Amino acid sequence: VKTFLKAIGYTLSTLVVVALVFAAYGAVKIKLYEQTDDPTHLKEKLQYLRELQAAERLPHRPNIVFVLYDDMGYGDLGITGADAIRTPNIDQLAEQGARLTNFYSPSPVCTPSRFGFLTGRHAERGQLAHVVFPEGHAMSNFIKLRDANIRIPAYEITLPEVLKSVGYTTGMVGKWHLGDVSPSLPNDMGFDTFYGALYSNDMLPFAIYKNGNIVIESPADQTLLSEAYAKASTNFIRKNSESPFFLYLAHNFPHEPLHVRASRLGQSAAGLYGDVVEELDKDIGSLVAALRDEGVLDNTLIIITSDNGPWYLGNPGPARGRKGDTFEGGMHVPFIAHWPSKIQAGQVIDGLAMGTDLLPTILSMLNLPKPDDRILDGKSILNMLTNKQASPHDYLYYYSGKLLAIRDSDYKFVPKRGIHYGMATLPIGVAVPKGPYLFDMRHNGNESYDIQAHKPEVFQRFEQLYQQRQKSMADNRGGWQ
Amino acid sequence: VKTFLKAIGYTLSTLVVVALVFAAYGAVKIKLYEQTDDPTHLKEKLQYLRELQAAERLPHRPNIVFVLYDDMGYGDLGITGADAIRTPNIDQLAEQGARLTNFYSPSPVCTPSRFGFLTGRHAERGQLAHVVFPEGHAMSNFIKLRDANIRIPAYEITLPEVLKSVGYTTGMVGKWHLGDVSPSLPNDMGFDTFYGALYSNDMLPFAIYKNGNIVIESPADQTLLSEAYAKASTNFIRKNSESPFFLYLAHNFPHEPLHVRASRLGQSAAGLYGDVVEELDKDIGSLVAALRDEGVLDNTLIIITSDNGPWYLGNPGPARGRKGDTFEGGMHVPFIAHWPSKIQAGQVIDGLAMGTDLLPTILSMLNLPKPDDRILDGKSILNMLTNKQASPHDYLYYYSGKLLAIRDSDYKFVPKRGIHYGMATLPIGVAVPKGPYLFDMRHNGNESYDIQAHKPEVFQRFEQLYQQRQKSMADNRGGWQ
Repeated sequence: VKTFLKAIGYTLSTLVVVALVFAAYGAVKIKLYEQTDDPTHLKEKLQYLRELQAAERLPHRPNIVFVLYDDMGYGDLGITGADAIRTPNIDQLAEQGARLTNFYSPSPVCTPSRFGFLTGRHAERGQLAHVVFPEGHAMSNFIKLRDANIRIPAYEITLPEVLKSVGYTTGMVGKWHLGDVSPSLPNDMGFDTFYGALYSNDMLPFAIYKNGNIVIESPADQTLLSEAYAKASTNFIRKNSESPFFLYLAHNFPHEPLHVRASRLGQSAAGLYGDVVEELDKDIGSLVAALRDEGVLDNTLIIITSDNGPWYLGNPGPARGRKGDTFEGGMHVPFIAHWPSKIQAGQVIDGLAMGTDLLPTILSMLNLPKPDDRILDGKSILNMLTNKQASPHDYLYYYSGKLLAIRDSDYKFVPKRGIHYGMATLPIGVAVPKGPYLFDMRHNGNESYDIQAHKPEVFQRFEQLYQQRQKSMADNRGGWQ
Repeated sequence: VKTFLKAIGYTLSTLVVVALVFAAYGAVKIKLYEQTDDPTHLKEKLQYLRELQAAERLPHRPNIVFVLYDDMGYGDLGITGADAIRTPNIDQLAEQGARLTNFYSPSPVCTPSRFGFLTGRHAERGQLAHVVFPEGHAMSNFIKLRDANIRIPAYEITLPEVLKSVGYTTGMVGKWHLGDVSPSLPNDMGFDTFYGALYSNDMLPFAIYKNGNIVIESPADQTLLSEAYAKASTNFIRKNSESPFFLYLAHNFPHEPLHVRASRLGQSAAGLYGDVVEELDKDIGSLVAALRDEGVLDNTLIIITSDNGPWYLGNPGPARGRKGDTFEGGMHVPFIAHWPSKIQAGQVIDGLAMGTDLLPTILSMLNLPKPDDRILDGKSILNMLTNKQASPHDYLYYYSGKLLAIRDSDYKFVPKRGIHYGMATLPIGVAVPKGPYLFDMRHNGNESYDIQAHKPEVFQRFEQLYQQRQKSMADNRGGWQ
């Protein structure tokens, strides 16, 4: 009886604590946070874009095609080791261009990763370090309870806004996932044209938009989705090949649920996931053909990468973890850059780089100034891609809401309580009280062995860096200067 | 206000449901389950052991040394790819003997794995498919609430009991973890001598026992633990080298918390974890030297393996998952068999095998009958090790409380809701509603791609096998015949 009462008491006390926490939370939060975008930063952004409009324009500016896959793993391509999936078109671009072996997505989940690719900044700066849900969804309210944003702030400077300001025609095809309400829709944030979905293909309602209008009602037939994106992309290229253009093609796949056009079903040795990736590869073939037909392939920078590591299916390669984790498997993704007139073929580059480098790289490529009112977290990797120079990064910072890891070329540091398990593990991410860790990234099983006791000076260096970075983010999260 | 109320309502309703579930559970469970061991099976066991005593004894019976590491990963040895840890002694045994590349522990966690190694049966048959906690621990009471056992049933037939019955001297050194109360202590279950700990090195009180007596009070200094086990092992060998002997050396490491003797600290390139593994390897050197000194090395079967995959640290090799998972990383472990007079050197064998094969293999080696009152889940792999024959297994079954996967040489099947995340992910294991899956184990990233839609006939075959196995376990969990 005594042990029984003890067991019951243990259960009840846990329950009471949980109830009290929720009650306290509810008592403090008397109303939901409402996102308002600071008008000062918006004014500074418009000022910067006006400066860009007036800036000198280089001759022969390249077109830019940025292809972002959703939840594709590092090991899902032939060129990165897949032996059950054929990706000849992507492999060929890699062989004719440069491939990075230490490239990281800006975040291990969709929304903050896209924030990072398009703004050059960590999403924590814009309070958007989480997956965004459709307006009115229960999770959307939960996010508001946590005082976080539900759309990209209008004052953030995006890559399409930069390129539009300097005369590019900007088109987006595919998944946005940076908010489904104005003033944060694709057409609000720099795209002349938009064809695609506002968020992930597992969220409802799932409609396809052309600019502000629904052209395919929810639930859209997802077996036709990649094909529709491919067509919209080649149409955009054919229509705009005279002027410099920027195409952002953000596929919804291989994010679950998986769907593929009928003709590709059963074609791969890797099940439906493999069929989907092979379809995506085939569409790269059509895209390259369109660029070649229009005579612009040589002067087009094509970038191919993924927003984070693989979810339940897909191959992270020889890495620990998956989507949502700040272990390598959550953020180490393929990166291919193809630009025949500037990037030498056959390069396999091991320098550190992250998705936040995209905007600074393109500013550098077009000889444009950076904004001076805000920090960009990324750095230009143009010279790494075109001039065999070393990485501009001494360190990369792995954020997922919090700063959860830092790496340099040799080591990766994980702070105390820094192990965060993501959405491939549980529907909600959780942190476990492990760490701090110091991993040596040069050995097999590179996140297997904590060497902090053996390298106290290295550990100390990272610990200080971590504290500094934590302080600078706490003092100036938005990165205003 | 409406959305706010909605959010609060959502939170409250979740809480109410949780509370109701707990209340209902409490109301039904009016008393804690008390383990009682069926006397019929105990009688049958004693009858079987008497038969063994009367059985003909082969000449020149080998000694058996079974070394079981705790939470060591597949990739933690030089011979399996580690480049930051040196294990020359273990590597040499592998090179002079046989190494299995598709060997699995009986379970992804400690207690049920040890149950499987020592009885040849899945721990589910003995209602011991979970980690055992010290008597009186809150978790121990929780286990009782679930009507599960807290110690190995006295009626189970163990490997030391079999060997003792046929004249072997049986000694255990190290971690038991099959219950800390009689009649389920090491000396109750077949060991003439016992020196070691009753459970894991992260549980308290952590005392060291010699048979029934505490010889090192809790908390024992764990920096001296592996050394003490090594000494006790070589002492046992030197004392018993005249008669056939069985030594079960079950190290507490590299299970966390990690400790190592002072002379090994800082010696490896893989931190404290690497130091610990290098110490364990050095101790294998001493053990082999003792066998050689006593002139019994040639006719001693040495087996080296691990109870499950690596926990927070350690390298599972190129596999998904870690300890607690039924993905490969949770159960795919190293296996080395060294027996110069019978096992040809230099063999790398890819046949399927599991820890439950140990008892049947030794019965076969000694030409002893199996018990006829109960099912053994394992099969003899003697001919696989000594005669280059194929694996006796068409299928292996991955259990962790429930049947969570089945594999054959080519495919691995995961039933609906079969994805189970273990203790490397969260303090308690959880299942997520994913699957069913069918993986092709012959490709890179072998648990990355679900091919069920492309191989419906294979999927169907496994699904039927799964249903049959589920039915046979439901009808006769204990495996009585």
